[in-house]
Amino acid sequence: MYPYYPQVPQFPYPNYHLMLPSFYNSPYPANGWFGQYDARETFESHRLPPEQKLTFVLVHGSWADAHFWDGIAAELRKRGHTVYTPEYAGHGKDPNKAVTHDMITKSVVDYVTRLNLHEIILVGHSFGGSVIQKVAEQIPDRLKRLVFWDAFVLKDGESVADELPPQTRQGFEQLRGASHDDTIMLPFSLFRALFVNTATLEQAKWIYAGVAPEPAKPLFEKLDLKAFYALPTPKSYLFFYQDNVFTGAEGFGWYPHMASRLGMFRLIVGDGDHMTDAFVRPSMVAQKLYEAGRD
Amino acid sequence: MYPYYPQVPQFPYPNYHLMLPSFYNSPYPANGWFGQYDARETFESHRLPPEQKLTFVLVHGSWADAHFWDGIAAELRKRGHTVYTPEYAGHGKDPNKAVTHDMITKSVVDYVTRLNLHEIILVGHSFGGSVIQKVAEQIPDRLKRLVFWDAFVLKDGESVADELPPQTRQGFEQLRGASHDDTIMLPFSLFRALFVNTATLEQAKWIYAGVAPEPAKPLFEKLDLKAFYALPTPKSYLFFYQDNVFTGAEGFGWYPHMASRLGMFRLIVGDGDHMTDAFVRPSMVAQKLYEAGRD
Amino acid sequence: MYPYYPQVPQFPYPNYHLMLPSFYNSPYPANGWFGQYDARETFESHRLPPEQKLTFVLVHGSWADAHFWDGIAAELRKRGHTVYTPEYAGHGKDPNKAVTHDMITKSVVDYVTRLNLHEIILVGHSFGGSVIQKVAEQIPDRLKRLVFWDAFVLKDGESVADELPPQTRQGFEQLRGASHDDTIMLPFSLFRALFVNTATLEQAKWIYAGVAPEPAKPLFEKLDLKAFYALPTPKSYLFFYQDNVFTGAEGFGWYPHMASRLGMFRLIVGDGDHMTDAFVRPSMVAQKLYEAGRD
Repeated sequence: MYPYYPQVPQFPYPNYHLMLPSFYNSPYPANGWFGQYDARETFESHRLPPEQKLTFVLVHGSWADAHFWDGIAAELRKRGHTVYTPEYAGHGKDPNKAVTHDMITKSVVDYVTRLNLHEIILVGHSFGGSVIQKVAEQIPDRLKRLVFWDAFVLKDGESVADELPPQTRQGFEQLRGASHDDTIMLPFSLFRALFVNTATLEQAKWIYAGVAPEPAKPLFEKLDLKAFYALPTPKSYLFFYQDNVFTGAEGFGWYPHMASRLGMFRLIVGDGDHMTDAFVRPSMVAQKLYEAGRD
Repeated sequence: MYPYYPQVPQFPYPNYHLMLPSFYNSPYPANGWFGQYDARETFESHRLPPEQKLTFVLVHGSWADAHFWDGIAAELRKRGHTVYTPEYAGHGKDPNKAVTHDMITKSVVDYVTRLNLHEIILVGHSFGGSVIQKVAEQIPDRLKRLVFWDAFVLKDGESVADELPPQTRQGFEQLRGASHDDTIMLPFSLFRALFVNTATLEQAKWIYAGVAPEPAKPLFEKLDLKAFYALPTPKSYLFFYQDNVFTGAEGFGWYPHMASRLGMFRLIVGDGDHMTDAFVRPSMVAQKLYEAGRD
Repeated sequence: MYPYYPQVPQFPYPNYHLMLPSFYNSPYPANGWFGQYDARETFESHRLPPEQKLTFVLVHGSWADAHFWDGIAAELRKRGHTVYTPEYAGHGKDPNKAVTHDMITKSVVDYVTRLNLHEIILVGHSFGGSVIQKVAEQIPDRLKRLVFWDAFVLKDGESVADELPPQTRQGFEQLRGASHDDTIMLPFSLFRALFVNTATLEQAKWIYAGVAPEPAKPLFEKLDLKAFYALPTPKSYLFFYQDNVFTGAEGFGWYPHMASRLGMFRLIVGDGDHMTDAFVRPSMVAQKLYEAGRD
């Protein structure tokens, strides 16, 4: 039998002055225990349960750098979490674009090891999913949980390119062939339609201004992931249902297609697209990452 | 041609003092006719259309008892509906766990017959879907509508276990084998990831405190459902898109996989998970059940 | 690297007196740049970026006429857009129900040509998807973008009926056979379950009062769409996730099944059903059409 559950009137708009700012942007109109309390009760009764303090390590995806996380990291820090956003080889200020998936993984592993981080919530976005799969294999004892946010979960022996619909894969191969340094630069029209489809044109252009050519090789490397699939680390999948990277291709995609490979995982769903919300609604993403990352 | 439709300004936050509390938690930001009226109009123009008064019979699922419905039933009653939450064999205070699917069905049929209920909205949650399928076969004349809420809709000849992904089914068989009284007790980690994935840890533990070992036999019994599939009773499917019971397994799941077996049904979708909202957002669930159950 | 992004406190409920009414109903709790500014800032900092002014041509579906768009068109016009809602052969006041898909297409083409419209956002709802596919073939130079809203995207050589689940198709054929003038009239029960499932009964009846028998022939005509699939016109797909026209049939449906045929398209998702929101939440639909239609 369920424990006693007091039936008190629900209050639709709790006095937000008494709430943590981070709960303002919750997609749930009346979620959380605070929804159960009456507005006429005391100040104390409105206060939210203390939020668990977590250590996040946020690993960005392709056509992005560590600044992708700026808004989200600021929101998480405001809520009391510790947040790290490692840059990895071939990205950010690194002039060398001739990198391998191994080098990228090593960047993150070295970062975590050098700072001697423990009990981390390791988050991968997009291509970053394949990175945290490999990072997890090397530093499993430092992990509290893996969170995949619209991120690749590759099968053992697969490359990221293997998970792309034929049309997209072919497009990437053409863009790769057209580059002089084995990178892929997304045309704006494709970026706007598939990565930031819910943005305004101004937002899309602003985000695109931060996009640099992506080293192609790591996207096409087949990865040995046998060790990953033996890890008992808890896992979460955060899926945003307006994400259009796979542009509706049947038999492909983040969820359920790739997420299902995680075995038992925690599912969290949001209404965002692939990249826009990181810039436009960072507190929404922060809330979702917290829901995905907490115990 | 459509009848005349007055173009009056929309008002985003209607004065909620003039609305029924039950509409506060609606997931629709501007739904209902009240969204069409101007804030400056009179009191009368803000009043909602009268809500249809329904008789709900709510049938819980596995790892739950009739108290699962406490919050939701209270919300529905506040809105003027009549609500029954029958307990069934092997659950609640029943010490006998050696029950069959037939015994469970009989509990509900006897309850409805004894109280001589008519025109009922018969709601099944989760495993309760298979129960209302069998109950409906026996008392079709007492039913106004069947509502499946993230609930099993079995094919003729199937068991609930037949609809589980292989990995989950195997896990259940191991848990069953490990019990001394042919029950299955969910480990907290599994319950937390698949049943209450959007809850806080505190909420998850609180809900888990109400979970008792589930009689295993009814989950593995094959059911004859030929009569069910000949019933003309109207049907609704309520699907919550963060439900993670099938943890993303492709080719399985509530909607569209099992829902599609109902033929023509009314679809209602919400943003909840499998169990959390019954406790944390009961008025949201009540609203969705009303949307699923009304004429 | 991303351009500098100022970290200012988010404000959950921006002073809506300073916002365009059209943003009130946004499904995003804290979207848009205005979410980034502090409530204490000046009036200017709250003003929204100017909305792009578009020319919409809205093409309705079956069991509807041009009045289907009345509420949505009014909302779009309030926001400064130019909106046209052409009626087409066999619908509205046209007494002749013996029409072909070609005649319907010609109605729209002639309308656009006669008014000499350019740079149009051509929107098709439901059956209207197949119409804008054919219209686009004839006046590609007048189009800025195609928007499919829960709309048919037929393969070359297909008919609308080819995309219906067997059970629905069979039902339509029976209804067609039962008519004296080769039309199909939807029974209320079917219309209520599949087209307006989220409506109240009163709303459903009100909307149904505007439904006339639909000419059957155009639904069963195979269309040559080779020219359509060679068009470079930008495309968007607007999908409402409570749409129940395909009533959960696996392997059928708007998104991703038919949407994926568009190749690279912009995805926008909303929480509505097939028809209700056009009447009950027109500003929500207008916002979504703007998101789908803008550059």
